[in-house]
Amino acid sequence: MVRFNCDYSEGAHPSIMERLLQTNMLQTAGYGEDDYCEEARKLIRSKFGAEEADVHFLVGGTQANLTVIAAALRPHQGVMASSVAHIHVHETGSIEACGHKIIAFPSIDGKITAKQVFDCVQAHKIDESHEHMVQPKMVYISNPTELGAIYSKEELEKLSSVCRENHLYLYMDGARLGYGLAAEDNTLSMQDIARLCDVFYIGGTKVGTLFGEAVVITNPELKPDFRYLIKQKGGMLAKGRLLGIQFQVLFENDLYMEISSYAVSLADRLREAFEKAGYPFLVENKTNQIFPILPDIRLEELKKQYSFSYQQRIDKEHSAVRFCTSWATKEEDVDSLIKEIFKQY
Amino acid sequence: MVRFNCDYSEGAHPSIMERLLQTNMLQTAGYGEDDYCEEARKLIRSKFGAEEADVHFLVGGTQANLTVIAAALRPHQGVMASSVAHIHVHETGSIEACGHKIIAFPSIDGKITAKQVFDCVQAHKIDESHEHMVQPKMVYISNPTELGAIYSKEELEKLSSVCRENHLYLYMDGARLGYGLAAEDNTLSMQDIARLCDVFYIGGTKVGTLFGEAVVITNPELKPDFRYLIKQKGGMLAKGRLLGIQFQVLFENDLYMEISSYAVSLADRLREAFEKAGYPFLVENKTNQIFPILPDIRLEELKKQYSFSYQQRIDKEHSAVRFCTSWATKEEDVDSLIKEIFKQY
Amino acid sequence: MVRFNCDYSEGAHPSIMERLLQTNMLQTAGYGEDDYCEEARKLIRSKFGAEEADVHFLVGGTQANLTVIAAALRPHQGVMASSVAHIHVHETGSIEACGHKIIAFPSIDGKITAKQVFDCVQAHKIDESHEHMVQPKMVYISNPTELGAIYSKEELEKLSSVCRENHLYLYMDGARLGYGLAAEDNTLSMQDIARLCDVFYIGGTKVGTLFGEAVVITNPELKPDFRYLIKQKGGMLAKGRLLGIQFQVLFENDLYMEISSYAVSLADRLREAFEKAGYPFLVENKTNQIFPILPDIRLEELKKQYSFSYQQRIDKEHSAVRFCTSWATKEEDVDSLIKEIFKQY
Amino acid sequence: MVRFNCDYSEGAHPSIMERLLQTNMLQTAGYGEDDYCEEARKLIRSKFGAEEADVHFLVGGTQANLTVIAAALRPHQGVMASSVAHIHVHETGSIEACGHKIIAFPSIDGKITAKQVFDCVQAHKIDESHEHMVQPKMVYISNPTELGAIYSKEELEKLSSVCRENHLYLYMDGARLGYGLAAEDNTLSMQDIARLCDVFYIGGTKVGTLFGEAVVITNPELKPDFRYLIKQKGGMLAKGRLLGIQFQVLFENDLYMEISSYAVSLADRLREAFEKAGYPFLVENKTNQIFPILPDIRLEELKKQYSFSYQQRIDKEHSAVRFCTSWATKEEDVDSLIKEIFKQY
Repeated sequence: MVRFNCDYSEGAHPSIMERLLQTNMLQTAGYGEDDYCEEARKLIRSKFGAEEADVHFLVGGTQANLTVIAAALRPHQGVMASSVAHIHVHETGSIEACGHKIIAFPSIDGKITAKQVFDCVQAHKIDESHEHMVQPKMVYISNPTELGAIYSKEELEKLSSVCRENHLYLYMDGARLGYGLAAEDNTLSMQDIARLCDVFYIGGTKVGTLFGEAVVITNPELKPDFRYLIKQKGGMLAKGRLLGIQFQVLFENDLYMEISSYAVSLADRLREAFEKAGYPFLVENKTNQIFPILPDIRLEELKKQYSFSYQQRIDKEHSAVRFCTSWATKEEDVDSLIKEIFKQY
Repeated sequence: MVRFNCDYSEGAHPSIMERLLQTNMLQTAGYGEDDYCEEARKLIRSKFGAEEADVHFLVGGTQANLTVIAAALRPHQGVMASSVAHIHVHETGSIEACGHKIIAFPSIDGKITAKQVFDCVQAHKIDESHEHMVQPKMVYISNPTELGAIYSKEELEKLSSVCRENHLYLYMDGARLGYGLAAEDNTLSMQDIARLCDVFYIGGTKVGTLFGEAVVITNPELKPDFRYLIKQKGGMLAKGRLLGIQFQVLFENDLYMEISSYAVSLADRLREAFEKAGYPFLVENKTNQIFPILPDIRLEELKKQYSFSYQQRIDKEHSAVRFCTSWATKEEDVDSLIKEIFKQY
Repeated sequence: MVRFNCDYSEGAHPSIMERLLQTNMLQTAGYGEDDYCEEARKLIRSKFGAEEADVHFLVGGTQANLTVIAAALRPHQGVMASSVAHIHVHETGSIEACGHKIIAFPSIDGKITAKQVFDCVQAHKIDESHEHMVQPKMVYISNPTELGAIYSKEELEKLSSVCRENHLYLYMDGARLGYGLAAEDNTLSMQDIARLCDVFYIGGTKVGTLFGEAVVITNPELKPDFRYLIKQKGGMLAKGRLLGIQFQVLFENDLYMEISSYAVSLADRLREAFEKAGYPFLVENKTNQIFPILPDIRLEELKKQYSFSYQQRIDKEHSAVRFCTSWATKEEDVDSLIKEIFKQY
Repeated sequence: MVRFNCDYSEGAHPSIMERLLQTNMLQTAGYGEDDYCEEARKLIRSKFGAEEADVHFLVGGTQANLTVIAAALRPHQGVMASSVAHIHVHETGSIEACGHKIIAFPSIDGKITAKQVFDCVQAHKIDESHEHMVQPKMVYISNPTELGAIYSKEELEKLSSVCRENHLYLYMDGARLGYGLAAEDNTLSMQDIARLCDVFYIGGTKVGTLFGEAVVITNPELKPDFRYLIKQKGGMLAKGRLLGIQFQVLFENDLYMEISSYAVSLADRLREAFEKAGYPFLVENKTNQIFPILPDIRLEELKKQYSFSYQQRIDKEHSAVRFCTSWATKEEDVDSLIKEIFKQY
């Protein structure tokens, strides 16, 4: 059985494991106050052109999301997001458990628009009973989205403008950030992201590390006391250096983008194969997730050797599914899957 | 200026004021442990045929909703409701502030269906990653809804069945319950409501009292320690007898239904007038709220003498608005408004 | 049975009932946006010399406390209070339910000192692991305290100074404020309170109204969006004018202080009687609550005609109990209780 | 600089690192649903004689504590704990952030007694206004405590009895469980713990792993839907197998107890040295933490080569500090520290 169902089926990139092993018996301060974390912070600030940013390392994405949002909002404020946003659908109500409503905008590919944000804020402002409604204060986007779509530079510029004009915080969930930046049609740079968002996180779990996400806060309003929140929400790793070491390896050279590009190139090959074999897609994208629509009968066949994830029923005989590649995907597994795709039944 | 914008523009029904005055200097125990409250509980149990029910008096509707829902749900559980539900739209995220997600179903008139509930629960059960999603556990309905619609006996039977089969709690927000029961097309009895719901509240604020809602809990699972929750959420009135006295007056004779019928009959007259004058309605209903669609130019005219509430824009020249009647509406005000409706411009 | 167990056994002062009756059928806007509320706000601002203050009316004390605290604090911040503070002991964890820890200081009479506050804040600052601890950000005091003690002007000045020097909010719970201001040994003026606190509330429930507390916010940092919080926490009364009307009656003349003085003078007489009869007190104070220590055998006797509240066991044969007077206490009841106190057994 | 300040200064035990490396590129299911986790669960159930227990792996202790407590309590319920309990003092209010009050009992060494629990519950039951108070429902103990003390079998039997008689949940935080079980004066077996507690966690972070705590739930009431809570609170590790692998290594042979005994034997040597050198202790214990009281002048000297943690000031010239050993402490470092202790100044 070969797993294409997600991008976190293996451990960490070998260079990371090696570094963890090398440093294993060294003694450091705990809770992210060690030199490895400090070094990783510098590397990230430098790569993203955000010398003044605060950088914090957390273990996972749900944790990062809930900590960032809980730290930023007052009790009556909510976060705007797409109807398919991870925080809205797949984090067991973690944001609501911190007291905040998610104001969901309809979306097919997981992207939301500056217009949706503007309309929401405007409607709130002019409503006579706006004190009876949750105040929209933050915008959550994922890039790539849960469906693999990415924001263009122009789109992010517009979102950022509408946020700044309306005193909203723009937060980007970058669980798969590398795979977005490596996409053929990407127009965003790391610097753009740091410049246009108030806070974002760089995903490690799905891009080479054992675990870990780097939260980068560029807006000074969001910086004070963030570490208190990390601790309160259970996200302060005692051996914090494990996070620092891993991000240091990812960013001291270009490992992060290198492995992201590798994963995306394999996804491109798979995507092309599905296309040539005549299968349509639920949504189009150029990142490491592919959402082809196949006959259920073909899926039954594929399931015998490959694991993929079920997305949604299309009609009585077809379903959309998800195949992911990652830094760890083997070329030979892609080759054999491609053969399988083209096989006649 | 005559107010038709809502059903809580005046104080309380004169009989209630009289009783409050009569009892004003008597000494009683606090926090709802007085004889008036006890007497009112008995009356309600008897009227609703729910001898085993727990009855609690709270000051307002948002308070009742958040207390009931917080008492019933574990942290990972959510409440299903219509997309226009008061708890979803007009209570400033009070449910989320207690930690719970609202799972919203599309709805025009504020009603939801047994099928919507079933599909939601079924989808949750079969989803492989349901532990990553909020568990649907309660159904919130309002009767009448925020848009004046009511559930038929058959509809409520179906909702109740799907809830019991799936171990869901059915909760009815009866902020305007009297106006629903008094509607011409109503098929529900008080006993039906107590039999089919696990918990519901009988609205007083909009139906004759200064303030106050009576929460009735019929499902024994929801009874334990409810008073702790009332206190914690700030809803335990020190002079609780004020609530008991008011509900006693409403239910010792048929005052509750009498004043509700009065309000509905005035609404019927207004509704008929709008209809005859050729105005369509945003939604149809037979309760105390009317949602006609009028030319903006006519609304400007009406606004000079009457207050009503703005509902939504229909097109460039028309808007839907809301007119309410209540136990306190004066017949002569309805007469003159009707004249105004038929006036030629 | 005559009730001395608390100060909320009756309804409202007759002048309040009269005004509620007079205004009962008038139509007003809801949610505290009516003219009565506006007028009451002006009166309070003027009496307290706080022309810039925001004034909000809430139904009860627990509600006021939790709303003020939830509005003021970020998630990692806590509120300092005495170990016998109402929010710590008798509000069913309402503050924790909003996510905040209460940092309790030992206290016998319910007062805390500027030194306790300073030491707490200082200890937090110098602790290397302060990010692992709740950040002290607000000071909650009650005046009079739960045990009837009051702060002198000098004490409040000191508390206020330590708060301002350390960027802490000073919040006074004035559930029985009138009875404190009317005490023989009181040195605080209404203006002092407004000047020295960042936010406080003026109790109505225990001082003449049916219900209602007036939250006064003088610190501009605490003003934004407070009404959203009121709504979210279930404290926004639909017929808000009921609160405005009651506070208008209390403050348009000197009714608030007049009835407070009356209650305190009756308490003084009772206190003197207990003293002369040779009974010690759990704590000394000059407000409307008296905490004498009596033999259990005497308490059994008194219990037949008078209700009072049990405070704590002193030794095998003695207990401390509480007697309260209020604006509604009858002189003849005090007379007869005094006779009873002096009776030989 | 040699670190004795805590027991989490290094990475993981070499056998764990080796296994992580061996399994690194294997593909598994995520979120703890892999075979390694399943195997580790079996080992733990077997070692603790708890065949019916649910076992869940979480990343850290604060996360484990808040998830267990949030899963167990209704909103009005609180958790009893010592005044020095980690959840009360050093987790930034994480329990309150989940809505629950901690009811703190005075304690010097971190232990609480069955009598304290009984008295608290009894006082709550008989208090007439118990609905105004947080309902005690869970008992949190740490073993060893934050100050290194351990519960005897008899003490835990008594605590367990009082809990079962009063329908309270008994929860043991075993962040340093191995070091407690390895103590010379320990009388508790793993089976006793599983039998007497309703839920407990076996600490990995401080006892050999990179990170990770194994929550063991023996009381069936606490089992339902626990994984939803893990996800909601941000504790569901995507690559859950990392936790399973680590606990498998710890428990497939006796590694857990072996390394715990090693650490304790080094602590015993240090303890003896401090004693012989004439230094008293803040608290006595036989586990891996030592709390000697030293002259500040000596501490200044020691600080040049050794890191230890500051505990509290004793008088103007003396302070209590903490030295920890762990599985990773080197014998030669202990030798040289002992020499330093005996050095004349």
